[in-house]
Amino acid sequence: MDHDRVKPQDQLATYLAEDMAAVNTLIRARMASEHAPRIPEVTAHLVEAGGKRLRPMLTLAAARMCGYDGPFHVHLAATVEFIHTATLLHDDVVDESARRRGRPTANLLWDNKTSVLVGDYLFSRSFQLMVETGSLRVLDILANASATIAEGEVLQLTAAQDLATTEAIYLQVVRGKTAALFSAATEVGGVIAGATENQVRALYDYGDALGVAFQIVDDLLDYGGTAAVIGKNIGDDFRERKLTLPVIKAIRRATAEERAFRHRTIARGDQTVGDLEQAIEIMARHGAMAAARDEALMWAERARAALVVLPDHPLRGMLRGLADYVVSRIN
Amino acid sequence: MDHDRVKPQDQLATYLAEDMAAVNTLIRARMASEHAPRIPEVTAHLVEAGGKRLRPMLTLAAARMCGYDGPFHVHLAATVEFIHTATLLHDDVVDESARRRGRPTANLLWDNKTSVLVGDYLFSRSFQLMVETGSLRVLDILANASATIAEGEVLQLTAAQDLATTEAIYLQVVRGKTAALFSAATEVGGVIAGATENQVRALYDYGDALGVAFQIVDDLLDYGGTAAVIGKNIGDDFRERKLTLPVIKAIRRATAEERAFRHRTIARGDQTVGDLEQAIEIMARHGAMAAARDEALMWAERARAALVVLPDHPLRGMLRGLADYVVSRIN
Repeated sequence: MDHDRVKPQDQLATYLAEDMAAVNTLIRARMASEHAPRIPEVTAHLVEAGGKRLRPMLTLAAARMCGYDGPFHVHLAATVEFIHTATLLHDDVVDESARRRGRPTANLLWDNKTSVLVGDYLFSRSFQLMVETGSLRVLDILANASATIAEGEVLQLTAAQDLATTEAIYLQVVRGKTAALFSAATEVGGVIAGATENQVRALYDYGDALGVAFQIVDDLLDYGGTAAVIGKNIGDDFRERKLTLPVIKAIRRATAEERAFRHRTIARGDQTVGDLEQAIEIMARHGAMAAARDEALMWAERARAALVVLPDHPLRGMLRGLADYVVSRIN
Repeated sequence: MDHDRVKPQDQLATYLAEDMAAVNTLIRARMASEHAPRIPEVTAHLVEAGGKRLRPMLTLAAARMCGYDGPFHVHLAATVEFIHTATLLHDDVVDESARRRGRPTANLLWDNKTSVLVGDYLFSRSFQLMVETGSLRVLDILANASATIAEGEVLQLTAAQDLATTEAIYLQVVRGKTAALFSAATEVGGVIAGATENQVRALYDYGDALGVAFQIVDDLLDYGGTAAVIGKNIGDDFRERKLTLPVIKAIRRATAEERAFRHRTIARGDQTVGDLEQAIEIMARHGAMAAARDEALMWAERARAALVVLPDHPLRGMLRGLADYVVSRIN
C-alpha cells in the first residue's frame, strides 16, 4: 500500500486504532446520564455522526510520540472531544444552523434549549474527565483554552456584520473558535507524557498553526466547496454576515460599487438571490481567495516547522502529513 | 441593635464584609475580557444588579468557620458566583425569561446568542479560578456539581409538561438546579480550610438541605408571591408548564375535572385568562401549598441539624438563622 495515497488522518486512525477504541468506549460511558435520558439521545446523534475525531487523535498522537504509556491520554482525548462537541452544540444555537456533519443539527431535531443544556452537560463531563488525570498543569491548559474559545466566540458575534473587522481580529476569532482547542489538544498530550518544555512548546505551536490553517481553509470552502464536500450548506458565512479572511481581503481592495454591495449585504443584512454568487465573483476578481489560500499554506508550513524538535517517530511523519492535507482541500 | 431583627444574610454580609469586598474585586477583574468588550457589558449588567451573593457567602462562611486564613476561599467564592451567573444566563435562554433580579434579562437586552456565549465564558473563568487554588479535591467537587446542575436542567426540560412527574423526579431537578451549587459552595469552603471529614460532610448536608428548602420556597412563591417581592413575574412556572412540588401534590389529589384542567393547561399548553388563578385555587383547595410548605420546613430543619458538628462560632449561628430565614418567606 502506497502511504502517500492514504489520507494522513486515516494513517493516524490506523496507527492509533487501539487508543481510539478506548477513547470511544470512554466517550460512550461518560455521555450517559442516569437521570436524564435525553442527554445520551442528543450526544449519540452527534458522537455517532462520525466526525473525524481529529482533536482526540492529536492528543493521542502527541502523547504516544513523546513516549507516554499511562492511561490518561485516553481521558484527555475524550475531554477534548467533549469540549469540541459541546462547542458545536452551542455554535449551532448561535449560528441557527440547520445542518452539521451532513445531518440535521440537534437544535433542529430537538430545540435550542436542549442544545444549550446538553452542551453544558458535556462541558461538565469533560471537566470531570480531566480532573481524573490529577494533573493541575493539564487543568490549567484546558481552563485557559476554554476561556479563549468562549472569548473568541463572543468576539466573532460582535465582529459579524462589522465591515471594519481587521485581519488581526479575524486571527483572534480563529484562535478562539479553532486553534485554541487544537493547541490545547497537542500540548496536554505532551504534558501528560512528561515531554521537555521545548517539546511541549513545539506541540502547542504545531496545534495552533494547524488550527489556524484548518480554519482559513474552512472559511475558504464556505465560498468555494460544495455541500457534499464540506457537509454543510455553502454560503452559510455569507448569510450569517461573517467577516472571514477572503471577505476582509476583498473589502480592503473594494471599489466604491463593491463597498455599497458589502454595506447592503453584510452591514445591513439585506440579501437577495444572486448575492452569494456576486460576493464570490468579487473575491475572485481581487485575488482575495488566492491571498487567503497563501496564508493558509504559510500556517501549514509553520505547523510542519514546529515538529522538528519532536522525537523521530512514525507519528511525527503523520502529523507533518496532516498539516499538508489540511491545506490540500483548497489546492 | 437587636440581631433578631436583622436578616441572617445581612448579618453574614456584615461579618464577612472584608472577604466579600475581596470577592467583588476578584469578580470584577475576572469578568473583564481583553478582546471582547461585550463580555464585561453583559456580566456587569448581571453582577452589578445586586443579587444576594448568597452562594459566595456560604463558601466564605464555611471556610472562616473552620478556621481558614489563606487566600483561596476568595477564589472559590468568586468561582461559585461565576458558575451561578453562567447558569442564570443559560436558564434565561431556556426559560425565555424577560426579567431577572427585577431587571430585563440579558437575552432580552442583547440576544440569546450573547447569553449562551457569555455564560460559557463565565464557566471557563470559574474553571480558571478554581484551578488557581491548586486543590484537586475542590476541582473534583465542583466538576461533579457542574455535571449535576446540567443534568438537572435537562431533566427539568424533559419533565416539564409531563403530568406523570413524581416528587422523586422533582427532588432530582431541585438538587440540580439549586442544591448542587449550595452544597458544593459550603463543602469546598470546608475542604480548603482543612476541616475534618465529618465537618466536610456536615457542610455538604447543610448546603444540600438549605438549597432544597430554598427551591421549594421559590417554587411556592411563584404561585403566591408578588412580582415586587420575588423580582420576577408571578406565574412563570405555570406558563412554562413546570411540574413543581405544589403542582405535583395537587395533581395527585385531583378530581376528574381538575385533571382535565391540568391536561389542557400543562400537557397541551393551552392556557387562557384566569387559568393561573384557577391553578392557585385548586392547589389551595387540596392543601397542596401547605403540604409543600411543610416539606420546606422539614428541609430547613435538616439544614440546622447538620450544623451541630461544626465549630461553635458566630458564623454557625448565622447559618442556622439563614435556614430559618429561607423558609420564613412563606410563613
